[in-house]
Amino acid sequence: MKYYPEIKIDVEKVAKFLELPPSRIADLIEKRNLQQNWDEYDDIYRFEGHAPRLEDGTVLIDNHGSFELVIGFPKIKRAMLLEPALKSRFGELESVTVEEKMNGYNVRVVDYNGKLIAFTRSGHICPYSTERVQNFLKRDFFKDNPNIVVYGEMVGPENPYVQKYVYDIESLDFFVFDMRYKNTGEALSVSRRRELAEEYGFNQARLFGEFGIGEATEKITQIIKELGKKGREGVVIKDPEMVLQPMKYTCSESNCSDLHQAFKFYNETGRDYLFSRVVREGFQSYEWAESEEDFKKRCLRLGESMLRPMKETIAQVQTGERISDDFSIRVRDKKVIYKFKSYLGRLGLYVTFGLPEKRGNEYIINIRKINKSTNDKTLAMLEGQLWS
Amino acid sequence: MKYYPEIKIDVEKVAKFLELPPSRIADLIEKRNLQQNWDEYDDIYRFEGHAPRLEDGTVLIDNHGSFELVIGFPKIKRAMLLEPALKSRFGELESVTVEEKMNGYNVRVVDYNGKLIAFTRSGHICPYSTERVQNFLKRDFFKDNPNIVVYGEMVGPENPYVQKYVYDIESLDFFVFDMRYKNTGEALSVSRRRELAEEYGFNQARLFGEFGIGEATEKITQIIKELGKKGREGVVIKDPEMVLQPMKYTCSESNCSDLHQAFKFYNETGRDYLFSRVVREGFQSYEWAESEEDFKKRCLRLGESMLRPMKETIAQVQTGERISDDFSIRVRDKKVIYKFKSYLGRLGLYVTFGLPEKRGNEYIINIRKINKSTNDKTLAMLEGQLWS
Repeated sequence: MKYYPEIKIDVEKVAKFLELPPSRIADLIEKRNLQQNWDEYDDIYRFEGHAPRLEDGTVLIDNHGSFELVIGFPKIKRAMLLEPALKSRFGELESVTVEEKMNGYNVRVVDYNGKLIAFTRSGHICPYSTERVQNFLKRDFFKDNPNIVVYGEMVGPENPYVQKYVYDIESLDFFVFDMRYKNTGEALSVSRRRELAEEYGFNQARLFGEFGIGEATEKITQIIKELGKKGREGVVIKDPEMVLQPMKYTCSESNCSDLHQAFKFYNETGRDYLFSRVVREGFQSYEWAESEEDFKKRCLRLGESMLRPMKETIAQVQTGERISDDFSIRVRDKKVIYKFKSYLGRLGLYVTFGLPEKRGNEYIINIRKINKSTNDKTLAMLEGQLWS
Repeated sequence: MKYYPEIKIDVEKVAKFLELPPSRIADLIEKRNLQQNWDEYDDIYRFEGHAPRLEDGTVLIDNHGSFELVIGFPKIKRAMLLEPALKSRFGELESVTVEEKMNGYNVRVVDYNGKLIAFTRSGHICPYSTERVQNFLKRDFFKDNPNIVVYGEMVGPENPYVQKYVYDIESLDFFVFDMRYKNTGEALSVSRRRELAEEYGFNQARLFGEFGIGEATEKITQIIKELGKKGREGVVIKDPEMVLQPMKYTCSESNCSDLHQAFKFYNETGRDYLFSRVVREGFQSYEWAESEEDFKKRCLRLGESMLRPMKETIAQVQTGERISDDFSIRVRDKKVIYKFKSYLGRLGLYVTFGLPEKRGNEYIINIRKINKSTNDKTLAMLEGQLWS
C-alpha cells in the first residue's frame, strides 16, 4: 500500500524546473526524499538522501510558483597524507589557497521574504541560527546579490551543536568561508568572495595565504602544527578559482578533542567516528616521520582522549548523578526559545530547557541533553551486569 | 521460489530426536541454518545461526540413524567491573574457581568412527586441528567416556588462527578447560573434570585456585596484573559446580596486543572490535583507581597498540611490498596439507601455501594470507587519494 505524505508542491512545475520527469518527483515525495518545511516556512522544501544531481541537504524555495535552489554544502574530502594528496588533487595548479577550517556548524544563509534565514547542513531552518544570523550579516549584501548564497561556520560556546572555547568568542559568531550561486551551486573564486565579504563587513574564516604548489606541503604542515597547539581544527585547501573541489586537513589535537567529547558519552560514540579518528593519527604520524618521543606523545594523547572522559563518566554515574550534555544559547526574542525547543523535538532530540535569564537586552537559556544509553550502560556495569 | 539445498538427512527422524516439529527442521535446512559436512564427514551436520535451544555451532552426528549432539561452546560473558560482576553473578556461592583463559582457538573433541575429530567453534571439522589433536589426547578417554565432549584451547605459534609466542610452546599444544555431556551440554564440575584430565594425562588450563567470594576480587586482580606482565590473556571465573555460567576477565596488555595485531591490517579492523577493546580499558582503569602515572602508561599502551602497527604497515607498503599475515603449520601426513587448504577455500579464505619442508618425521608449511583491503587503501593514500 502506498502512502503519500501530504505535501502541497506542484509536481509538474517542480519537475520542469529541475528538468526531471514528474514521476521522478512523485517518487522523491513518496520516499520522503523531498520534504516540506513547517510553520512560516512551508514554501521551503529540502532534499534528503539521494536526489539526482543535487547535494544532500539542498533546499528548494517556492516563491509563489517560481523556484530557486539553495544547493547543499558539498562534502569536503580529507587528505590523509598531505603531500601526495596535494599533488594528486592540485598538482596542475600553480598555487593553492589555504583558509582555516573552523570548528562549529555549517550554515547557509539567504534572504527570504525580506529576512535572513539560516539552513543547517541537512537543509532544515534552524530558528536559533536564523535569529542569530541577523546580528552577523547585513541584509544589504543579499539585496545587492540576490543570487548568492552565503556559507559559513557558526562558532563559539553558546552553540547548540558544537561548543568550542578556543576561539576567544564569548557567545557565538559567524565566519563566512564560501559563496555560491543559487540553482547551479557554482562557487565564487576565493578572492572575489573575500572581497565581497570585506566590502559588507562580514567576518571571514582566516586566510593563511596562497602558496606555490611546491612549497604548500611544508607551509601547511607548519600551519597545522601551530593550529594544533591552539586547539584549532585545521585548514581547507582550495583551488583559488574554486573550480577544483577543496580538500581538508586537520590537527591531531582537534581530532583527539573530538574523541574526548565523544567518549564522555562512550556508549553513544559512533564506531566509524572512532575508527576514522584513530586512522588519521596513524597517517599523520607516518607522514611527519616523527621522533619516538613525539610519536609517544601522540599515542598518549590518543589514548587519553578516550579513557579520561570515560573514567570521569563512570565516576560521576557512580556518585548517583546522571551525565548530560549541558550548553546554553542566547536569544533576543523569547519566542525563539519555544520555536527552537519545538524544532529540536521535531528532529527527535529530547532536551530540557532552563528558565530564560535576562542578560542585557537578551536572554540566556541553559539546555540539558541526557544521554540515556551511556547512563544506562554505566549503571548496569556498576551493578555488576556483564558486557555481552 | 523455494530453494532446498541438497542435504541427505532424514527430517522426520531428526525432528523426533530434537523434539521439534518436522516443519521446523525443514525450515532450518531451507534457511541454511542446518548444514551438512563434506567428504568423509558427511554424516555430520552443524547448526549455524538461530537454532532453537541450541548454542551456535552445535553439531549433529548421524550414526546410521541414531543421533547425537555435540553442543556448541557457550559464549562466556565478560566482566567490565570485576567486583560488582562477581557479586552479581556469583554472590550466592561460597567460592569461585579461577582458571587461566588461554589465547588460542576453541576446539571440541569427540571420537568418531574410532578416530578423534576436532570441531572449531562454528562446528566445522578442521583437518589441521583433527590431525594435531591425535597427538594431544589419548583415545582411551573417549572409549571409557563415550558421552563426554572435551573442550580445549589450541595454543601456540604454529596455529592457523591465533599465533601466540607467550606460552613457551614451540609448535602447538592443547589445553583442556571444559568437559560436557553430549546431547544435554551439561558440564562436569571443575574438580571432576580436572581429575579426569589428570587421570588420562591431558594438559589443562592452569588452575589458580578456589577463592572465597569475599577475597576473590583482590586475588583475581593480582592474578590479572601478573598475567598481564607476561602477555597472557586473562582468567575464566567459574562456579566450582559449573551450574552458574562462567565469566571472563582479561588483561589490558592482552587487549592491546589484540589491537596491535588488528591494526597491522587497519582497514580490516572491525569497528566493534576496536570499540569494545577501548571501552574495556576505561572500565578497568576506573575500577583499579589507578595513579595518574599508571593511567598514563595505560593510555600510552592503548594509543601505541593502534598507531605503531599502522605506521609499520604504511612504511612497508611505501617500499612496494605488500603486507601479509604469515604463519606456519606442522603436520605428519602430507595429505592434511591439501585437505586444510581446500577447507580454508571452502570457508572463503584465500591463502598461499609454501612447499612442505621436512622436519623430523613431520612437515612444516608456511602460509601467507594477503589482506587486500589494507594493502589497497594504503596504496591509494600513498598515491594521494582522499579518504572520503
